[in-house]
Amino acid sequence: MVERRKPIKVNEAITKVMEFAKPGNCYQVPIEDSYGHFLSEDLIADHHVPPFDRSPYDGFAIRSEDTITASSSNPIRFEVVGEIGAGSVFEGIVNHMQAVRIMTGAQVPKDCDAVVMFEVVQEESMEGKSYIQLKRKVHKGDNISFTGEDTEKGTPLVPKGTYINPGVVALLATFGYKYVPVSIKPKVGIIATGSELLGLDEPMQPGKIRNSNAYMIHSQIKRAGGEPIYFGQFSDELETCYNQVNDALEKVDILITTGGVSVGDYDYLPAIYEKLGANVLFNKIGMRPGSVTTVAELDGKLLFGLSGNPSACYVGFELFTRPVIRTYLHANNPFSKKETAILGSDFPKPNPFDRFVRGHLSFHDGQLIATPVGLDKSNVVSSLAGANVLIVLPGGTRGYKEGMEVSVILLEDQEGTTMEKFMTTDVNSRRSRRKHG
Amino acid sequence: MVERRKPIKVNEAITKVMEFAKPGNCYQVPIEDSYGHFLSEDLIADHHVPPFDRSPYDGFAIRSEDTITASSSNPIRFEVVGEIGAGSVFEGIVNHMQAVRIMTGAQVPKDCDAVVMFEVVQEESMEGKSYIQLKRKVHKGDNISFTGEDTEKGTPLVPKGTYINPGVVALLATFGYKYVPVSIKPKVGIIATGSELLGLDEPMQPGKIRNSNAYMIHSQIKRAGGEPIYFGQFSDELETCYNQVNDALEKVDILITTGGVSVGDYDYLPAIYEKLGANVLFNKIGMRPGSVTTVAELDGKLLFGLSGNPSACYVGFELFTRPVIRTYLHANNPFSKKETAILGSDFPKPNPFDRFVRGHLSFHDGQLIATPVGLDKSNVVSSLAGANVLIVLPGGTRGYKEGMEVSVILLEDQEGTTMEKFMTTDVNSRRSRRKHG
Repeated sequence: MVERRKPIKVNEAITKVMEFAKPGNCYQVPIEDSYGHFLSEDLIADHHVPPFDRSPYDGFAIRSEDTITASSSNPIRFEVVGEIGAGSVFEGIVNHMQAVRIMTGAQVPKDCDAVVMFEVVQEESMEGKSYIQLKRKVHKGDNISFTGEDTEKGTPLVPKGTYINPGVVALLATFGYKYVPVSIKPKVGIIATGSELLGLDEPMQPGKIRNSNAYMIHSQIKRAGGEPIYFGQFSDELETCYNQVNDALEKVDILITTGGVSVGDYDYLPAIYEKLGANVLFNKIGMRPGSVTTVAELDGKLLFGLSGNPSACYVGFELFTRPVIRTYLHANNPFSKKETAILGSDFPKPNPFDRFVRGHLSFHDGQLIATPVGLDKSNVVSSLAGANVLIVLPGGTRGYKEGMEVSVILLEDQEGTTMEKFMTTDVNSRRSRRKHG
Repeated sequence: MVERRKPIKVNEAITKVMEFAKPGNCYQVPIEDSYGHFLSEDLIADHHVPPFDRSPYDGFAIRSEDTITASSSNPIRFEVVGEIGAGSVFEGIVNHMQAVRIMTGAQVPKDCDAVVMFEVVQEESMEGKSYIQLKRKVHKGDNISFTGEDTEKGTPLVPKGTYINPGVVALLATFGYKYVPVSIKPKVGIIATGSELLGLDEPMQPGKIRNSNAYMIHSQIKRAGGEPIYFGQFSDELETCYNQVNDALEKVDILITTGGVSVGDYDYLPAIYEKLGANVLFNKIGMRPGSVTTVAELDGKLLFGLSGNPSACYVGFELFTRPVIRTYLHANNPFSKKETAILGSDFPKPNPFDRFVRGHLSFHDGQLIATPVGLDKSNVVSSLAGANVLIVLPGGTRGYKEGMEVSVILLEDQEGTTMEKFMTTDVNSRRSRRKHG
C-alpha cells in the first residue's frame, strides 16, 4: 500500500527547518578576497573621516576675514607663502593677506579657514614672489571638508552579517582592515539519486535523462553563499546508498539529496532517514512544485531531500535551504527579499495549493511587473534560465489575472529579509490594478 | 597658469569610450565553475526535452480507451503486467485491460497513452497476479509529459553573452555541457596615485588618509566580471610613474589609475599620457562627482584615469569602465540597467551639471523608490556601503523634490541594458507623483 502523507503549510515547514539553522564560525580573509563574503563583526570607524580639515579641491587656503572687502571692482591680493601637496602638512604660519597653495586632499593650514579654487583666482608673479588676486568675498568654511564631517570616530558603519559589496570594501580599507573578519562558508553536500540519470558526457539513452539537478543546485549553493561539494550519484542499492549518505554527512554542514523522496518503489530516502535515526521534520508540503520536499535532522545537521523534478528542486532549495545557508553566514536577513508586484499575464488555472511560479521581474514606469516565464510544469527546465523571481500564488479556487497584485521572491537579491517578513505576505487583498498604473 | 579644460557631456564621453570597447577571447570551464561567467556561444538544445514521453508521477501506465466505461459505480480492473523504474524501458506489449507500474521520470510504454497516479487506484492481488481498480474515466495524454513538450531539439535556449545563473547551469547540464564555452575575464590593472595615501596596515598620520580606492575598485572590477590586478601605489617621481604605467600596460587589457588626473601640481597622469603618446579621449565631463574623469587610449587599450575622490572614483568606474568590461565578456547588454523610480526625499540644491547620487532603491506597494544615502559630497565614503543605485539628476537650475520621477542606474543588476537604452532617459518629464501612488 502507498503511504499517505499529510501535507503541512509552507510557513510551518519554514519554521520547522529554521529551528535547526545556526550560525557557523568565522575567519579572516585578505581584503582583496572579501567581496561577496558576509561580515562577521560590526565595522566601527576607528578614526574621524576626514581625519583632518581637508581641501576637497586644488586651490589656495586663505583666512576668510581677509576677503570682506573683495569684489569685482575691488580685487584683493594675497601673497602665496607656501604649497601643500596631498599627504604633506604646512608647518609655517599664515598671516594677514597670505595664502598657501593647496592640493586636493591636503590638510588645511591651522591659520586658514577657507579654500578658494584655482579657477576663481588670477595668479601673478612679481619680483620673485607669487601672488593671487581674488574678486569675491569668501565665507569661513568655504571649500573645506571638516574633520569627522563624513564619519565620526566610533560610529558603527556596517553591521555584522552584511553582504560585502564594493562600498563596504571601501569602508574596510578606509578603516585599515587589511584582513576582514568574515563567516566561513558552510560546506553543502549534494547527492543525486535516480537510475534514470546520465552523466553529462554520456550519450542520450532511451528512458534516461541527463543529471541537471546536481549542477543546478551546485550553482544555487554558490549564489546563496555556500561551498558546494558534489558526491556524485547514488547507487541503485539501498545499503550502498545508506553508506553514501552516512559518509557524506561526516564531511558537510548541510546535505542535499535530489530525488528519491517520493513514495515510489525506488525512493530510498525515507528508509535511509529511518536507518540513520534522523528526525524527519516533514515529508509533504502543500505547495506546487515541490510537494514531496522532505527535511530531516540528525545531530543538528539538516538533510534536505529535494524533489528530483528540476523546478521543484530549484524552488525547494530557494525556500528552505537558502535561509539555512545565510543563517550559517551570520546574515542579518537570511531570507530572500519578498516584494509586491503586478502580475504581468493571466494565470487562469486555479490550484488548491500555494504555487511558486518562476517569473521574470521587470520595471515599467517605476512599477514592478512579474511575468511567468515558460510553461508552468514542474519538469520544465528552460523556464528557469530567465527567472529572477518566484511568483507566489496562494492556493485557492480562483485563478489569477493580469494586473492583480502578487508577492514575488527576488532570486538575485543580496539584501534579504527576516523570517517574519518573509512569512508575511505583503499583499493584503487581491485587488486589481492597471498594469502600468 | 592653470589649464582650462572643456567639459563634455556624459553621453558623449560614453560614446567615445565605447568606440574602443571590444570583445575578448573565449575558453572552456568545467560546468561546476561556470556560474557567474558569461556564455560565449549560443546554447542550443541538442535533443528534445523530455527526450521521450515520460511519466511525471508514480503510477500506472494504461490505454485510455479501456477506461471509457469506468465510474465510481462501475470500477474497472487492469492486470499489472510489468514495472518500469525511472531510467529503464518496458520492452513488452501492453494489451487491452493491462497496466504497467511506472515510476516518476520513466518512459511510458509505447502501447499506453495515459498514466493514473497511485493515489487514485486500488491495488489488489489475486492468485499471484497484481491488479488495479480504477473508478474514473481517463483521457488520452493524461499525466504524460510528451517528447519535446518542454523544449524541441534545435531550439536556441540561451543567447551568447548571457550571464550564467543557476537556471542556465541547469540547461547546460541538460544538454550535456560538461565544459562550458565562456568569455575570458579581462585583466584590469589598478594603480593608486597620491602621496597622501597610507597602506592599510600603516598607522594614521597627519595629512594622510588610507588608500581605500584601490580596494574599492578591486571589488568593483570583480562585480563587473573582470580580473583585478593591483600594481600598488605610484611613486612621487614622474619618470618612475611613467615606467610603472608602461610596465602595467603590458600585463593588462584595461588599466585604471585612481587620482592624479586633476590640474594640481602633483597630477602626473596628463604628462604620462603625453609621454606614452596616448590618445586622450576627454579629460573633463560635465558631471558630479567625477568631473575630472579622464580616458585615454593607446594601441587599442583603454586607460581610465579615475578621480582620487572615493565617490567620484566609484561613479566613474560604473559609468565608463564597467560597460567596457562587459563588452569584453561578450555581454549582450553591457550597460547597467536604468529604470524609472520615485525620488524618496528632497534634493533641493540645484546643480548645472548632471549628478549621479548614491542611493538606495526599495520597493513600496509595487513601486520603485530611490532615496539618496548619506551626505552628497564626493568625499563621503560611508554612503557607498548602502548604495544599490545611482540616482541620475540631470543638471539644471532647479532642485528635485520627493515624489518626482528620476532615472536610477542599478548597481547589482546582471541583466544589463544596451548603450542606446542606457543613454536614453526613461523620464520624459519631471512630473511629480505621490510617493506611494
